[in-house]
Amino acid sequence: MAKTNPGRFFEDYKIGDVIAHAVPRTVGEGERALYHALYPARHALYSSDEFARDSGLPESPLDDLAAFHVVFGKTVPDVSLNAVANLGYAEGKWLKPVFAGDTLRSTSEVIGLKENSNGKSGVVYVRTRGWNQLDEVVLDYVRWVMVRKNDLGAPAPETVIPDLKKVIPAGELVIPEGLDFSNYDFVQAGEPHRWGDYEVGEIIDHVDGVTIEEAEHMIATRLWQNTAKVHFDATFRPDGQRLIYGGHVISMARALSFNGLANAQMIVGLNGGAHANPCFSGLTVKAWSEVLDKAETTAPGVGAIRLRLVAVKAGAEPGQLKGEDGKYLPDVLLDLDYWALMPM
Amino acid sequence: MAKTNPGRFFEDYKIGDVIAHAVPRTVGEGERALYHALYPARHALYSSDEFARDSGLPESPLDDLAAFHVVFGKTVPDVSLNAVANLGYAEGKWLKPVFAGDTLRSTSEVIGLKENSNGKSGVVYVRTRGWNQLDEVVLDYVRWVMVRKNDLGAPAPETVIPDLKKVIPAGELVIPEGLDFSNYDFVQAGEPHRWGDYEVGEIIDHVDGVTIEEAEHMIATRLWQNTAKVHFDATFRPDGQRLIYGGHVISMARALSFNGLANAQMIVGLNGGAHANPCFSGLTVKAWSEVLDKAETTAPGVGAIRLRLVAVKAGAEPGQLKGEDGKYLPDVLLDLDYWALMPM
Amino acid sequence: MAKTNPGRFFEDYKIGDVIAHAVPRTVGEGERALYHALYPARHALYSSDEFARDSGLPESPLDDLAAFHVVFGKTVPDVSLNAVANLGYAEGKWLKPVFAGDTLRSTSEVIGLKENSNGKSGVVYVRTRGWNQLDEVVLDYVRWVMVRKNDLGAPAPETVIPDLKKVIPAGELVIPEGLDFSNYDFVQAGEPHRWGDYEVGEIIDHVDGVTIEEAEHMIATRLWQNTAKVHFDATFRPDGQRLIYGGHVISMARALSFNGLANAQMIVGLNGGAHANPCFSGLTVKAWSEVLDKAETTAPGVGAIRLRLVAVKAGAEPGQLKGEDGKYLPDVLLDLDYWALMPM
Repeated sequence: MAKTNPGRFFEDYKIGDVIAHAVPRTVGEGERALYHALYPARHALYSSDEFARDSGLPESPLDDLAAFHVVFGKTVPDVSLNAVANLGYAEGKWLKPVFAGDTLRSTSEVIGLKENSNGKSGVVYVRTRGWNQLDEVVLDYVRWVMVRKNDLGAPAPETVIPDLKKVIPAGELVIPEGLDFSNYDFVQAGEPHRWGDYEVGEIIDHVDGVTIEEAEHMIATRLWQNTAKVHFDATFRPDGQRLIYGGHVISMARALSFNGLANAQMIVGLNGGAHANPCFSGLTVKAWSEVLDKAETTAPGVGAIRLRLVAVKAGAEPGQLKGEDGKYLPDVLLDLDYWALMPM
Repeated sequence: MAKTNPGRFFEDYKIGDVIAHAVPRTVGEGERALYHALYPARHALYSSDEFARDSGLPESPLDDLAAFHVVFGKTVPDVSLNAVANLGYAEGKWLKPVFAGDTLRSTSEVIGLKENSNGKSGVVYVRTRGWNQLDEVVLDYVRWVMVRKNDLGAPAPETVIPDLKKVIPAGELVIPEGLDFSNYDFVQAGEPHRWGDYEVGEIIDHVDGVTIEEAEHMIATRLWQNTAKVHFDATFRPDGQRLIYGGHVISMARALSFNGLANAQMIVGLNGGAHANPCFSGLTVKAWSEVLDKAETTAPGVGAIRLRLVAVKAGAEPGQLKGEDGKYLPDVLLDLDYWALMPM
Repeated sequence: MAKTNPGRFFEDYKIGDVIAHAVPRTVGEGERALYHALYPARHALYSSDEFARDSGLPESPLDDLAAFHVVFGKTVPDVSLNAVANLGYAEGKWLKPVFAGDTLRSTSEVIGLKENSNGKSGVVYVRTRGWNQLDEVVLDYVRWVMVRKNDLGAPAPETVIPDLKKVIPAGELVIPEGLDFSNYDFVQAGEPHRWGDYEVGEIIDHVDGVTIEEAEHMIATRLWQNTAKVHFDATFRPDGQRLIYGGHVISMARALSFNGLANAQMIVGLNGGAHANPCFSGLTVKAWSEVLDKAETTAPGVGAIRLRLVAVKAGAEPGQLKGEDGKYLPDVLLDLDYWALMPM
């Protein structure tokens, strides 16, 4: 009996299946420091326990995207080992902050299947949940990937395409228990701009750039126990390049967005996202954001802001996303749509 | 008086000498996170405090190889600064798990000496012990190295070659106090294969590969306070290459072996090991294992499995170790013989 | 309204202004481990909690230079974003050790201004203070930088040049509360040389070298939340090189100085420093020290030693600092003058 994991193929997924992903992970101060070492992360609520306490939390949580990466990483051996492409995200909600000492595990429920007309692959939709050691869901999101068939003769399953919200309504966002921005310290946070200072349609060029190194993206991706060969093995692709984990680009762009969005403190919703073009080492990543929407919340002093976060190669024009053909421009790496919380 | 450490030469070692190595080291959550960032480590007992507790331990210990590297690193300034070659390991036993907050120090006892017939160097055998802050031995192993003479006129010492076991008998392995695999969660651990599923002689190709980066091996080797110039200084070797610490290859191969040996959780014995060929950055490391032996233990649900772990360059054929001349094939980097604990 | 930080220009500084720098930072075990991973740091007091306790401290503090880097990093967006050059340091005092769990923030008071005769830039002197969560000053130093003017028509301010001590008198050094070296363990510390063994004028070649990697200096510089573009963005300089943060060279040289100065445990004073030549990845850094002065202290068994720490490119002659023209030799990277504490 072969002992190694061949991954799942399209025909191995059934609607309603719940996959318990392996290798729970305890996170702590080490992950926190590494996140700050790998990304230019400066949002004060994650940098300072004191700032977090002044905001009504017991201490700084693990960065929301680090929590996402840990939960996501566990799904790779079961969901994306034979994936051809990562097609999209939807309905991502952060439900509980993750604190040092928490142990995370993940499950994925198969909620959609559609075989491609070529009969060689299909699209699998899963709802992934991240759980802590108290069996509370800390994160919940839908992702769909194109997966190869192994047995081309396997019959096509009944097509099921889940009905996914294009945008999470602001009223469904979960505000972390106790969060209170009424005594928010804008000086310590780094910028004076509050929720009311941002206008829908506004474009913010985050100015700074970071050149990507092989060692850094591998250290990050390994830290999340993401095992996809293409990120680590230079002999895997014919061109000898290691494809950079899309989540590395997400975290880099989000950290760069501090410059202009220092007060967009916590990420609570992921409406959608596309890895528009692949990223390789040597590229310099920059970022710009667009304000897509704003909403009030019931938490004291806390507003919600919906942002488009775009990662681009250095040299790209901020605000330029797609060409006349409706396709992403070649310099665009990432187009992410998320909800963050900001002082009002 | 020169203030810097010239290292010891062959004539400086006397049978029975015990060298107290410098710079004790407290390990913690940072080392744990870095180990997971530098190696694709996924064994559940080290990844999750909850899994460790369900296995009868108070929390996840520091990875057994990280403990080895810390203990080994301290010996470098006293044992291998003038070493020509690291010749072998034997009788390595992990006696106590190392937990966050523990402070490690090392001692080495000279147990063997043999001058080479050329009169220019000799082989030194040391038994190294790693101690925690309670003066308990956590790790104990024998290592022998070829060391240069400084004073070629120094008389050859009486030859003493220690009587070393080729393999640690299973009955002498020390099982961590409280370890209990009777309620082992194979789903969380990542693979269904238990002790009974492995057969002596079985070869497992671990499939995955990692391309080695200068920054990563230096970060790892520095973390263990290993000071050998050859790993860090590109001007040291005539070819301008930095030789990669053999322990980096050991940890890389062991982490890769998760895929097929996810349940070989704890390392308790090191029977022997050879760094068959040097490793440099840019190489892609893969690994395969051979089951060498199996034994029962007295701990509930815990079996012992003796494994050969082989690190190779990408492209090598799994299972191929030596040529017709009895020498290691050029693609073989590491041949390690160890005992691990596995659920029965 | 532009949301991103343009940085301050020369005309924006007024004598007496106190700038509260943004983004407080909680430090912990992760930063400690990363410091040991990024630099060959081996001073026992920072490596072992047990050694620190035997020296009268509650546990190992964060490395003094790590504390410096965190405090310094916060000043970059407000002080050096438009700086042309970092000109000097003076009167640096470490006033309180920083322990895991402490949260640091920084303030800078403008204490000197001098417009250059070209009318295009000027020199700004600031006294920067690092504070912990108890509002205690942990570090205090003066730094001066040359900053561009934005509005060339802005009138020149009155010239104020602060009266700075060339050397902090030994009697003004602050010894950490409780520090006691009377039972100092020289074997564990790594070298037998005590305060009395060093002579003023003595030169120590630290022998070891480290080749600089892009990933490593970026990880380090990011960890201190230093945002200067020139360290991270390969498209920023016309030559495509990333300039290495001067503090990376300081920490590298200081760690290398262990070999010969293992007992120069704690840094308590920074008399001055110059980044003599820029450092780029691929260079191999070595270091040498000169004993500049010695003084007794009131703490039991604790002496103070004033050292010149020089970082050089591999191949440079130890002890050679400046040419006949009085300028730093091209192989010199750093010339640092500091006070450390050593067992008597």
